Amino acid sequence: MYPKQFEALVDCFQHLSGVGLKTAERYAFEALEWDDEQIHRFMQGLDGIKDIHHCSKCGHLSDEDLCDICKNSDRDQSVICVVQQSKDVVAMEKTHEYHGVYHVLGGVISTSKGILPEDLNIDKLIQRVDQESVKEVILATNPTVEGETTALYLSKLLENKPVEITRIAHGLPMGGHLDYADEMTLIKALEGRKKM
Amino acid sequence: MYPKQFEALVDCFQHLSGVGLKTAERYAFEALEWDDEQIHRFMQGLDGIKDIHHCSKCGHLSDEDLCDICKNSDRDQSVICVVQQSKDVVAMEKTHEYHGVYHVLGGVISTSKGILPEDLNIDKLIQRVDQESVKEVILATNPTVEGETTALYLSKLLENKPVEITRIAHGLPMGGHLDYADEMTLIKALEGRKKM
Repeated sequence: MYPKQFEALVDCFQHLSGVGLKTAERYAFEALEWDDEQIHRFMQGLDGIKDIHHCSKCGHLSDEDLCDICKNSDRDQSVICVVQQSKDVVAMEKTHEYHGVYHVLGGVISTSKGILPEDLNIDKLIQRVDQESVKEVILATNPTVEGETTALYLSKLLENKPVEITRIAHGLPMGGHLDYADEMTLIKALEGRKKM
Repeated sequence: MYPKQFEALVDCFQHLSGVGLKTAERYAFEALEWDDEQIHRFMQGLDGIKDIHHCSKCGHLSDEDLCDICKNSDRDQSVICVVQQSKDVVAMEKTHEYHGVYHVLGGVISTSKGILPEDLNIDKLIQRVDQESVKEVILATNPTVEGETTALYLSKLLENKPVEITRIAHGLPMGGHLDYADEMTLIKALEGRKKM
């Protein structure tokens, strides 16, 4: 009942997960209001996708062979922070507190989703530990069942290498309230307690 | 911290209202997984926007001068249903019960948003009533303060023309529950009661 071109655009927006017909229609109606420049910019944005690769070293998104972090000689190349996805790199970078480099796994081991260790960017991590002078590997996968499993798997894999393996701390989030925290978080917060 | 092309795409998605940084990033990450064909289709969809016009008669979206409904000689051209936007035409069409034609206002009168009668597609409606043999104008703007105001405004404007002016019924929605209905709806449902 809409013109064909409009239906086509609605259909495109519906390809985004979590976007149903109503939302896709809303997006398409908004797009109708855009000026030529905005449309052109969006088309170029989509066109640019093919220029986005994964860093050949760490797996983070990059428009060149090596990402900006791996190329940066000011970063401590002897500390590798292992994360699940590129988003996590960006989250860590926002702290401005971490000066090492990263390794992006591209996911976590998940038997329910059929993701096995060989589907992840693990071989290259081992290679890096073997070939570069790495002192520490920080396992920073999410504190979920799958993230913990993956961290455990990696720690076993690396245990005989001359490298320190650490796991990010679990506990109460800053600004959090004890009575709103789940039991697992409280247990981890207790276990991880430190002398003041 | 993402590659420039990726940031550009995220920025494009953020132009959609209701889409913040997190959602835009999620969309862009999904787009990274698309194959060339899907990206091409999306780009074409955006490119097609410039071919989408408003029907010169009723204001509904159309890829030609007249929309499919206005062109259709099987439709009763003497009954015009006045709606706020193209979405409403599609909603009405889904009922398969309405066989007249439409007139899309492109909004409603709203003092708070600064939308005045002259910003809406009203002149052409008057023109249609004057020049075509129109028997009935159904005012089907939303039952909101602004929709009611607009309906009232239009009914005043048309009151001296040889045409019947009707307003869609207000009342309890089908499948609705009395105890969940707001007072205004209940009042309207009572006022509009009919003999059984």
